[in-house]
Amino acid sequence: MNTFTSTADDLGAPREFPWIADGLAYGGDYSPEQWPEEVWPEDVALMREAGVNTVNLGVFSWGLLEVADGVFEWGWLDRIMDLLHEGGVGVNLATPTAAPPIWLLQAHPEITTVDAMGVRVSQGGRLAWSPSSATFRRYALRVVRAMAERYGSHPALRLWHVSNELGNENARSYDDETGAAFQRWLAERHGSVEALNQAWGSAFWGHHYTAFEQVQPPRFASTGHNPGLLLDFERFTSDALLGYYEAERAVLRDVTPDIPITTNFMVMNEPGVHDYARWAKAVDVVANDHYTIGADPHRAGELAFSADRTRGIAAGESWLLIEHSTAAVNWQGVNRAKGPGEMRRDTLAHVARGADGAMFFQWRASTAGSEQFHSSIVPHAGADSTIFRDAAALGSDLVSLARVRGSRVERAKVAILYDQLSAAALRSGRNPSNDVTSTREPIAMHRALTDAGVAVDVLPSDAALDAYAVVLVPTLFLAPDGLAERLDAFVAGGGHLLVGYSSGIVDETNRVIPGGYPGAFRETLGIRSDEHFPQFAETVLRLDSGATAGRWVERVEARDAEVLVRFDGGDFHGWPAVTVRRVGSGSARYLATSLDDAGLAQLLAEVVADAGVAPVVVRDRGLDAVRRVGDGASYLFLINQSDRPCTAEAGGVDLLTGVTHTGRVTVEPGAVVVLEEAR
Amino acid sequence: MNTFTSTADDLGAPREFPWIADGLAYGGDYSPEQWPEEVWPEDVALMREAGVNTVNLGVFSWGLLEVADGVFEWGWLDRIMDLLHEGGVGVNLATPTAAPPIWLLQAHPEITTVDAMGVRVSQGGRLAWSPSSATFRRYALRVVRAMAERYGSHPALRLWHVSNELGNENARSYDDETGAAFQRWLAERHGSVEALNQAWGSAFWGHHYTAFEQVQPPRFASTGHNPGLLLDFERFTSDALLGYYEAERAVLRDVTPDIPITTNFMVMNEPGVHDYARWAKAVDVVANDHYTIGADPHRAGELAFSADRTRGIAAGESWLLIEHSTAAVNWQGVNRAKGPGEMRRDTLAHVARGADGAMFFQWRASTAGSEQFHSSIVPHAGADSTIFRDAAALGSDLVSLARVRGSRVERAKVAILYDQLSAAALRSGRNPSNDVTSTREPIAMHRALTDAGVAVDVLPSDAALDAYAVVLVPTLFLAPDGLAERLDAFVAGGGHLLVGYSSGIVDETNRVIPGGYPGAFRETLGIRSDEHFPQFAETVLRLDSGATAGRWVERVEARDAEVLVRFDGGDFHGWPAVTVRRVGSGSARYLATSLDDAGLAQLLAEVVADAGVAPVVVRDRGLDAVRRVGDGASYLFLINQSDRPCTAEAGGVDLLTGVTHTGRVTVEPGAVVVLEEAR
Amino acid sequence: MNTFTSTADDLGAPREFPWIADGLAYGGDYSPEQWPEEVWPEDVALMREAGVNTVNLGVFSWGLLEVADGVFEWGWLDRIMDLLHEGGVGVNLATPTAAPPIWLLQAHPEITTVDAMGVRVSQGGRLAWSPSSATFRRYALRVVRAMAERYGSHPALRLWHVSNELGNENARSYDDETGAAFQRWLAERHGSVEALNQAWGSAFWGHHYTAFEQVQPPRFASTGHNPGLLLDFERFTSDALLGYYEAERAVLRDVTPDIPITTNFMVMNEPGVHDYARWAKAVDVVANDHYTIGADPHRAGELAFSADRTRGIAAGESWLLIEHSTAAVNWQGVNRAKGPGEMRRDTLAHVARGADGAMFFQWRASTAGSEQFHSSIVPHAGADSTIFRDAAALGSDLVSLARVRGSRVERAKVAILYDQLSAAALRSGRNPSNDVTSTREPIAMHRALTDAGVAVDVLPSDAALDAYAVVLVPTLFLAPDGLAERLDAFVAGGGHLLVGYSSGIVDETNRVIPGGYPGAFRETLGIRSDEHFPQFAETVLRLDSGATAGRWVERVEARDAEVLVRFDGGDFHGWPAVTVRRVGSGSARYLATSLDDAGLAQLLAEVVADAGVAPVVVRDRGLDAVRRVGDGASYLFLINQSDRPCTAEAGGVDLLTGVTHTGRVTVEPGAVVVLEEAR
Repeated sequence: MNTFTSTADDLGAPREFPWIADGLAYGGDYSPEQWPEEVWPEDVALMREAGVNTVNLGVFSWGLLEVADGVFEWGWLDRIMDLLHEGGVGVNLATPTAAPPIWLLQAHPEITTVDAMGVRVSQGGRLAWSPSSATFRRYALRVVRAMAERYGSHPALRLWHVSNELGNENARSYDDETGAAFQRWLAERHGSVEALNQAWGSAFWGHHYTAFEQVQPPRFASTGHNPGLLLDFERFTSDALLGYYEAERAVLRDVTPDIPITTNFMVMNEPGVHDYARWAKAVDVVANDHYTIGADPHRAGELAFSADRTRGIAAGESWLLIEHSTAAVNWQGVNRAKGPGEMRRDTLAHVARGADGAMFFQWRASTAGSEQFHSSIVPHAGADSTIFRDAAALGSDLVSLARVRGSRVERAKVAILYDQLSAAALRSGRNPSNDVTSTREPIAMHRALTDAGVAVDVLPSDAALDAYAVVLVPTLFLAPDGLAERLDAFVAGGGHLLVGYSSGIVDETNRVIPGGYPGAFRETLGIRSDEHFPQFAETVLRLDSGATAGRWVERVEARDAEVLVRFDGGDFHGWPAVTVRRVGSGSARYLATSLDDAGLAQLLAEVVADAGVAPVVVRDRGLDAVRRVGDGASYLFLINQSDRPCTAEAGGVDLLTGVTHTGRVTVEPGAVVVLEEAR
Repeated sequence: MNTFTSTADDLGAPREFPWIADGLAYGGDYSPEQWPEEVWPEDVALMREAGVNTVNLGVFSWGLLEVADGVFEWGWLDRIMDLLHEGGVGVNLATPTAAPPIWLLQAHPEITTVDAMGVRVSQGGRLAWSPSSATFRRYALRVVRAMAERYGSHPALRLWHVSNELGNENARSYDDETGAAFQRWLAERHGSVEALNQAWGSAFWGHHYTAFEQVQPPRFASTGHNPGLLLDFERFTSDALLGYYEAERAVLRDVTPDIPITTNFMVMNEPGVHDYARWAKAVDVVANDHYTIGADPHRAGELAFSADRTRGIAAGESWLLIEHSTAAVNWQGVNRAKGPGEMRRDTLAHVARGADGAMFFQWRASTAGSEQFHSSIVPHAGADSTIFRDAAALGSDLVSLARVRGSRVERAKVAILYDQLSAAALRSGRNPSNDVTSTREPIAMHRALTDAGVAVDVLPSDAALDAYAVVLVPTLFLAPDGLAERLDAFVAGGGHLLVGYSSGIVDETNRVIPGGYPGAFRETLGIRSDEHFPQFAETVLRLDSGATAGRWVERVEARDAEVLVRFDGGDFHGWPAVTVRRVGSGSARYLATSLDDAGLAQLLAEVVADAGVAPVVVRDRGLDAVRRVGDGASYLFLINQSDRPCTAEAGGVDLLTGVTHTGRVTVEPGAVVVLEEAR
Repeated sequence: MNTFTSTADDLGAPREFPWIADGLAYGGDYSPEQWPEEVWPEDVALMREAGVNTVNLGVFSWGLLEVADGVFEWGWLDRIMDLLHEGGVGVNLATPTAAPPIWLLQAHPEITTVDAMGVRVSQGGRLAWSPSSATFRRYALRVVRAMAERYGSHPALRLWHVSNELGNENARSYDDETGAAFQRWLAERHGSVEALNQAWGSAFWGHHYTAFEQVQPPRFASTGHNPGLLLDFERFTSDALLGYYEAERAVLRDVTPDIPITTNFMVMNEPGVHDYARWAKAVDVVANDHYTIGADPHRAGELAFSADRTRGIAAGESWLLIEHSTAAVNWQGVNRAKGPGEMRRDTLAHVARGADGAMFFQWRASTAGSEQFHSSIVPHAGADSTIFRDAAALGSDLVSLARVRGSRVERAKVAILYDQLSAAALRSGRNPSNDVTSTREPIAMHRALTDAGVAVDVLPSDAALDAYAVVLVPTLFLAPDGLAERLDAFVAGGGHLLVGYSSGIVDETNRVIPGGYPGAFRETLGIRSDEHFPQFAETVLRLDSGATAGRWVERVEARDAEVLVRFDGGDFHGWPAVTVRRVGSGSARYLATSLDDAGLAQLLAEVVADAGVAPVVVRDRGLDAVRRVGDGASYLFLINQSDRPCTAEAGGVDLLTGVTHTGRVTVEPGAVVVLEEAR
């Protein structure tokens, strides 16, 4: 059945909603308000030509819907909703709260965020409002309710798209109203001010609080703020934004209980403030925005990590790629366009990893406004253009893949644990090295495994680990309560664990766990370090395995572990770089440095071999292979990310061409094959 | 006759004024107020020794002339004016408004500019006042009137020098008084708020305005502002400064109708806010400040471009180099001193290109104040110094060149179009690549032609093109209304056009011209691009001409044009890099990338050859050759910018040495020859 | 006798105080308030194990001692003072004013500093209060008096440690209260506003003042401020902080006249505002904080310079290293840990150069707060750690060296003059090159001499020079009144002087001394430059000595001097790089550029040879050799900073091992020998 199940935390029980499209959703953000009305029929005709079945509509349109305080002009939106419906295009209708109208900003300048220096944001951008502003919320919920009442039963309506990228331009406000909300949040979290003092270690520098009212957001100070305060402010900010989302959701549920609700995440936005694993529980379907960084030579790998992570927070359910780009964006220094076939590969790589739809920002390129040079499906050159033709061909591809909709990505045997909260902790304080980031090692490990054809799930650290053979914990700076015990059980149960450096250093209050590093995991790993030796970026160290390493060294004592690899030469000669503690058939490895690509691939190959994990399929390196499994069918996505032909030992019908392959399939450079496999 | 003609836009008709000096003006900014009065006679004696006949006097002296509100102390200025007159030194008298007195800043702190974050500028610098401040203007015009009344008939007075580098430290204020002035300016420009909404495309992000009073300057916002607003704010700021200038001018005209008026421009100051082509119409004689950048290996070429551009906005009339430096400045990171002969070459290069005078900032080096390490004619070491001796020798050279005064630079056959407004548009928004600048390609093309001995005029795009054989349009991002039609006519008339990438992309409202790039010029060029491919700085691409290219690629379709050069290899293999559309004897080339120096020289050589344009004179590369033409005489400037002797096929009397050359002249490395040619 | 002599400027006469420890002081900052009270006995036991005899206690503890306005809770401090005393650990008790309590910051936000943009510092850091705040001072002196009254006679109390690193986070406030204090300071310094105008050359830009009330701190301005104002603001700020220290001192002297008083300096903190040579006269014993920069390959040399400079401002008396680190700090980008033996070498290098104690920040590593990753004696891993074991071994070493306490470093024959005020002048204005710093050449010269085994004193320029054979004046931008005459006398007396470029350029008002560079010293040196030629960082120039040079060239005329080295080739060919004016047996050299290491070593070798200065001892390069001399004994410190064994021609008993060496001693790589020499 063409439905999906929501387990959103405001529903009493899991509930089915119709899926938003027939088959995979395809389309983009559509801003008809930027164009004369005579262009609209051409838009709808082109959408049909391109296979577009879904648009995100109304994002940023508040100022054109409520043209003065309480004065609504729905006419244009009525007309385009009808036109789209007639054209067979479904609508994810955005509540328009991502851009307050000019009249509201002028009547209530106090709704915007204030930076740490005390400067209030002025009009001219988007978002900018503080999630803690009661005045803003009053105005916003009024327009949301009015919109829900007007369009709740419109036949084109498929999904509510709450606001847009909440927090992208309005995270972290330092004004007094936010400060008061922060104080209330702290009171709820810590219970007593003494508990807060204890959690933050506020005896440091004598910053003892005697009332919650004394706490302020981390404003411009003479030196670094308390890491506990910083981390709690990040948590609070995520919660304040989420609370705002929930307020919109409550209005929508009230008026339109049968329409599913989401908001677009940006899971790879660093340093983002959102604890998206928590947010995922608040939406009916996880929707993500993803943009590649042109200067990143490994952008395909970063995309794959992003998609696996999105699926991870969606608890393995299918999800929606609600924004990506056809070509160049406009906010990087030099905005690289995409190469031949790259738009198609990017799209299908998301679908392979569980997306049940792929939408672009944007349908038609703006000629004005600050995104006038952002790419689109219909570029400035119009439909007579390579991009439009490619997008239409892609639309046709997605129609061919319609039956994939609703299938699930085969669960992997290898999991990488990644927590946004740990990333927040790592940046909330003055740590041994600014060169240690929360994403480098997770993405590097993910890429090494993907290159080896091994499937990986990227999971929040509170996910169940039972079904996995290998668990990787790279740079998980903050160790959540109970994780060590769960990892112990995993290893004791025969699982294979690899923990990377700078993991398990602090607890949930961002305090260092004393007694030797990595405080949380040293028993699990059978090792103990007494000192960190961060390395300068240019330093290259040799290991006795033949690999090289850098960025990080520590003085590891292998108390209850075997040393697998040691540093070779220099001040660190003989120190352990990789250790293993074997527990029955399980194992717990520690990686005390940052390896070069080949060294990391070799290490992971050993772990995977220990665990007996096989690749998704036997295939040439360069061929990205992912399998989705549905009712009685499985779909093997083979995406050739290399510049030479690659083969895989697989067979079935290529849904994109209809050609049947038996036993072996060859994929041309840059091309994609999707096999419906005989099972 | 020793006069010049002003066509300033406040005069009913063109009018003659006496030129400010006998022959070429020579001297510098003179600040006697910084020195004990006993130094003054030595100053005047040294001026005579150095051939100085003109000084800029009184710049920044307000605080010493009006020592308290309405209390004037003219004594010292009276005395030095008399002393200079007795010494035969003419005075460009500055209205002292470039530095408000401390008492005024304290009585009216609200006169200063406010930055985009809302921080008001404090005392301690210069300028800093907002051109939209009514209070400042009231005080300023009072002192200007008082000064005009006192010195209007002083025999030393030659020229009014209004304030100083208007906008250099007081462009772009974001305060409310400026905001109100901006709103009035917008109302005048756009007529109705609906027209403004249309021009800016304010439907984007729902930034719909319902009253001009809702518009604010582009203050600190959550993301980039609307490009139309940004561009209009640049236009407004230029106009606000110009309006201020005009207010001073009105006072001066009223009191001293027979004294010409100017203000010093900084035409190469990027990102400058001034639309100097418009400003040029407001002064009686164009005066420019020019400083080379020590770290620029092509600084001589940049200087030549600056001088040709200054002449261009002066509509070919002679102009005044009113500030440059004898040696190092003090505001660059490492302030490079000039090399042997460089001060002389720099000076004579300006004169060659139409300057009828050359003045230094400054006469005598300050020992105190924030410019204490800026070079001068009389350095800290005093007159017994290389710099003073070189400056005196240069003064003598300029006396030898006196008859050049009033002649005009021979009109070139090649024009480069350059608009400040286009530069403003390019920086007003988030564009495909931050590496695309408005000056790189214009200066590179100018240098390539200068190296080839071909004369170039640098013109505002609204200049008449009839007299030119070649017109170059490099990176003219904003296409003014009507330019495409004028270029069509130029080509149809047998002209040779070369348009460079990133030209004609937006219209006068900074909106993209849709339908394919370059929107404004694609018909003229017979080509159409549907996508831009900005390249990272380090990328080098090969062309089938043997040249290399970078920074920019686009997917060009040669619809009505021949492909001359193609990309060779890689993703862009076979794509057009240079095209030509031939129209009768005319041609229209498009350059879709940024060429290496040799490639650019080759391309321009072909264009010039097509057009039959000859060099100024047959000469060795390295010899900069410019011709000025006067009544019955012509003057060929030959400046050897190389480190080896260079010869030119030219003859006449070298005005600098009196030596007669017949048929061929050799110029020593770094030396200059100025031939009065037999015509 | 175990005492030391204070000559603090508030004592009527020199006076003896007991030294703070038996033998050398050893320990660290101790923050028991961060730990549960049950940890304290373990702390004291570990201190005994580590040889710790002294702690800095109570720094930052205000908020835990005065928990609300006027409400004191002394209990915990009483208990730990008693416990430390019982454990034989002496206390340097800090007045807790370095971190105002939260309640005080909330009741009086106006006590904090305001930056140049007008932004007031919020709570969350440390220091942050303005030294000119009367309100802060009232609260601070109250808690200081209360603490002095409570603990003044406690047997553990050894020394008052006033606040902490005064000025580190609260130099330069731009608020109005500070402005008024600045005006009063200026009135006192200049006497009349006309004298101020003259000193600053305020005629520049017409910044004429008619009342002291018109002067403001150098707030956000449109361009660079007047260098005279900037320098006076630096002087004022140093004095304001010093005045605050003196206010605390007055309270302490009043209550506890028998307890010596100090505050911890940071003499290498650039750009620091403190004129520490003046501050040194205000303390009973000079105490310094020193941290090496991990990325500096010459950090051992920088440490040696710091220690010699600390002794220099202490007028040769012994001093206290009151903070350094056992290992990594947490405020550099990548916080390098120390290598094998480095903590020991660093510590003993300070002791060798006159420190009578060495203390670490900190005793036990914090688990919370913004310094949670700063190293300590007891690291996160606890006492079972390399760092603790090394620190305990070092404690044992210091016990072995106890008899060194009270001895003095042998006076050197070579002095480097270094003034903080000159450094302040160099950064207070827009100078020829941002690449010229006040520390590069002094440290380079110091290192070249140290490498050659030659002892160096680093002195304020007003120190007596009679006892020296060689005086070096590198980059002494500001020439204090009378210094030229004193250097003349030094040379006339047979001394050997070397002045480096960018010295003697400005006078005490930061005005350029005209007449040719270096204005203050050109007669002394017999040379005169008329122009500076700063060089870009990447430029390498050849000299005819074979050395290379860079960064600086000037056009030197050797009027009364011999040219020793010239530039070779290029624009500067033949120009003097090194000159000498010989006066009887004395000499005055000028170095007009920045030499490479070998060239500088060669030049200094010549100067030292001329002066007949011998190394401390004949030894291999790489062996740092310093001699301390006490009553009837001398101690030769030999620190091997190299990676190979080094020998010295010296003998005596190695106090660290008890081994007797006769005639020659070999020191292993990285090791230290301290010989008690037979005299």
